[in-house]
Amino acid sequence: MKFFNVHTVEEVFNLIDDKIKPIEYTEKVLISNALNRILSVDIYSNENVPNFRRSTVDGYAVKADDTFGSSESMPGFLNLIGEIKMGEEPSSEVNYGEAMYVPTGGMVPDGATSVVMIEHCEEIESLLNVYRQVAPNENIIQVGEDIKVNELVLSKGKKLRAQELGALSALGILEVEVYKKIKVGYISTGDEIVTPDTIKLEMGKVRDVNAITLNSICKQMDIDFIYGGIVKDSEDELYRVTSNLLAEVDCLILSGGSSVGTKDYSVDVINKLGKPGVFTHGISVKPGKPTILSIANDKPVIGLPGHPVSALIIFKVFGTTILNKYSGNRSSLFINKITAKLTKNIPSAAGRADYIRVSLEKTETGWDATPIFGKSGLISTLVSSEGIAEIPSAKEGVLAGELIEVILF
Amino acid sequence: MKFFNVHTVEEVFNLIDDKIKPIEYTEKVLISNALNRILSVDIYSNENVPNFRRSTVDGYAVKADDTFGSSESMPGFLNLIGEIKMGEEPSSEVNYGEAMYVPTGGMVPDGATSVVMIEHCEEIESLLNVYRQVAPNENIIQVGEDIKVNELVLSKGKKLRAQELGALSALGILEVEVYKKIKVGYISTGDEIVTPDTIKLEMGKVRDVNAITLNSICKQMDIDFIYGGIVKDSEDELYRVTSNLLAEVDCLILSGGSSVGTKDYSVDVINKLGKPGVFTHGISVKPGKPTILSIANDKPVIGLPGHPVSALIIFKVFGTTILNKYSGNRSSLFINKITAKLTKNIPSAAGRADYIRVSLEKTETGWDATPIFGKSGLISTLVSSEGIAEIPSAKEGVLAGELIEVILF
Repeated sequence: MKFFNVHTVEEVFNLIDDKIKPIEYTEKVLISNALNRILSVDIYSNENVPNFRRSTVDGYAVKADDTFGSSESMPGFLNLIGEIKMGEEPSSEVNYGEAMYVPTGGMVPDGATSVVMIEHCEEIESLLNVYRQVAPNENIIQVGEDIKVNELVLSKGKKLRAQELGALSALGILEVEVYKKIKVGYISTGDEIVTPDTIKLEMGKVRDVNAITLNSICKQMDIDFIYGGIVKDSEDELYRVTSNLLAEVDCLILSGGSSVGTKDYSVDVINKLGKPGVFTHGISVKPGKPTILSIANDKPVIGLPGHPVSALIIFKVFGTTILNKYSGNRSSLFINKITAKLTKNIPSAAGRADYIRVSLEKTETGWDATPIFGKSGLISTLVSSEGIAEIPSAKEGVLAGELIEVILF
Repeated sequence: MKFFNVHTVEEVFNLIDDKIKPIEYTEKVLISNALNRILSVDIYSNENVPNFRRSTVDGYAVKADDTFGSSESMPGFLNLIGEIKMGEEPSSEVNYGEAMYVPTGGMVPDGATSVVMIEHCEEIESLLNVYRQVAPNENIIQVGEDIKVNELVLSKGKKLRAQELGALSALGILEVEVYKKIKVGYISTGDEIVTPDTIKLEMGKVRDVNAITLNSICKQMDIDFIYGGIVKDSEDELYRVTSNLLAEVDCLILSGGSSVGTKDYSVDVINKLGKPGVFTHGISVKPGKPTILSIANDKPVIGLPGHPVSALIIFKVFGTTILNKYSGNRSSLFINKITAKLTKNIPSAAGRADYIRVSLEKTETGWDATPIFGKSGLISTLVSSEGIAEIPSAKEGVLAGELIEVILF
């Protein structure tokens, strides 16, 4: 009988950080198709945003010193010389003793140094009464105050969210260079697995669950997913199917067949797919100990346990970390982790990290996490859970009331 | 001059809860296309999962009482009568004095009441030495232990994540009834707005930012987005374009034109689109006070401020709440909120809620949130922020060290 030479969770994260490099290929995409893509170059601005002085209020463009000393009891008086229309250049400049109406977002005319809010003024025919003084530059956004010409706007490795695309849009940058979208190939293995469209289950068979759960997580990450079917327990067949699929994709995921059973040849097959080969076989973690991580010719290969719960948890914890790094993403990867207060004791073995399904409830001061216990094969426990609590290797369990990290589903 | 009759944030959330109903229409979709869709019916199971007794370990199926008293020094001896293959029905049952090999996930034969782990046994030809006793039902998942036949598996209003689709897959349910996918129509308004493909900006003009930021958030919510273009500041034109677009979509969003300026007719136009009309005009919130919320013939209409930062924040806070409710989603909506410790004082006016852009940093005990201050027009402040901290109406600012809620981008 063969035992695993297991790594701790911390070692595995270090190995991933060390061994997984961003995919080499990049491509140009329109910003309208670039949501969630990862920049492969730095982006510098080509112009100032805004490229004219903008008012932040509805009010009157004035010379600030014309308002000094103005108050409710001692208003200042200015000649109203016109109105600036939204989106238009002012017809004249503002001199001492003059004021011009400007709407929020409108262009502040030359000569004016501030804008007085409409609430603090009163128009009386062509005369403006000003009831409050304003400081120089008050209520004005300066040229380039948002983004300066030649400024570094977005860095290589940044994931493009709504606001990054907005900034590119403001600059008129309609196309960006991003890392190629990763294409993941997936295979379910096991003689007991049948397709979900099987109407009448034979005794001993179960329908494939991992194909759709792993596909869903890839979809959420905007990663393409190629389903390679179900492979029966046969070393030759597994090698044939995986090597063919790997040639077509950027990353391969298998589930099942990674336990120390009599049919344990997945690790040999994965090792044969390419160099440098397997770097993790067995993680000191529950559930999901018999996980295999490998690199075959620069392409990550992930061997997940077959049990739906183990497969999903290991994929959330390690698989998405690998795929994020491989996608070139250097943004905060663990923003989907929250801190929560545990409501029940969780026992754990020292030297082993535990990932516990939890339900979450909002409280006055944060979140409460309640463990959902169940055998690892039970998909129903995942349905009632909102996240996965992490009990680090160093701890022998966590007591009710202690704070824990929860990875959100 | 017209003043807003403003609502507090809390009032607005209550109004949304009261007035927005799930969209009436439903449709059947394949589970392979159902990620992030919202169930419009309860789902009951049509069979047991598993539908046979499964082993949770690699080991030997035995009668539990045959192992009672077995230990390292006093092993029990059983006749090895065969092996169960994965996915196959056992060829015979297990009687007293007998054991049969069963792999993890394999079918436990009739007669057997437990499985002894392989690590606690030793095969010596056709004899099995058992070095540890097992309790009845140990290492076995019972029929229906995961999901029982006729059990309520998923409730109406549940958002379908990876694990819900996995549970449906396990049951062989390949098609589900969900609420219709919402189609949002969007219009930018303002004489200063030009399309992002404008190469040379004229003075006073700015490129449209809201179209792509709001589209991105809708994409993340799996909501379809129809871009209705830019409408110049003209009441007739705005009514013509909005009423035409509203006829084609389930929800209408406008940005710009909602400030109390000389051109403030958006609220009148929105009111004219259908009954019951505007229910919020002005929210006691910074930024985004001049927000308009309305319902026209059962379709929500959202009038956002024109400034990119205000528009994005108001849409994240109120718009996504409306769209979630309208989509039929009854799952925890605020799972994307974390609790963080503020690193700097934030002043705020009592009676007004403030939404402050923050950057987040992971600490030993949770998250630190650092406010990013900047005029509301600055898109660059959004690029460096990971979330929006909420300062409730009741508070006059928050001090450094206090805990705050942060809505994650």
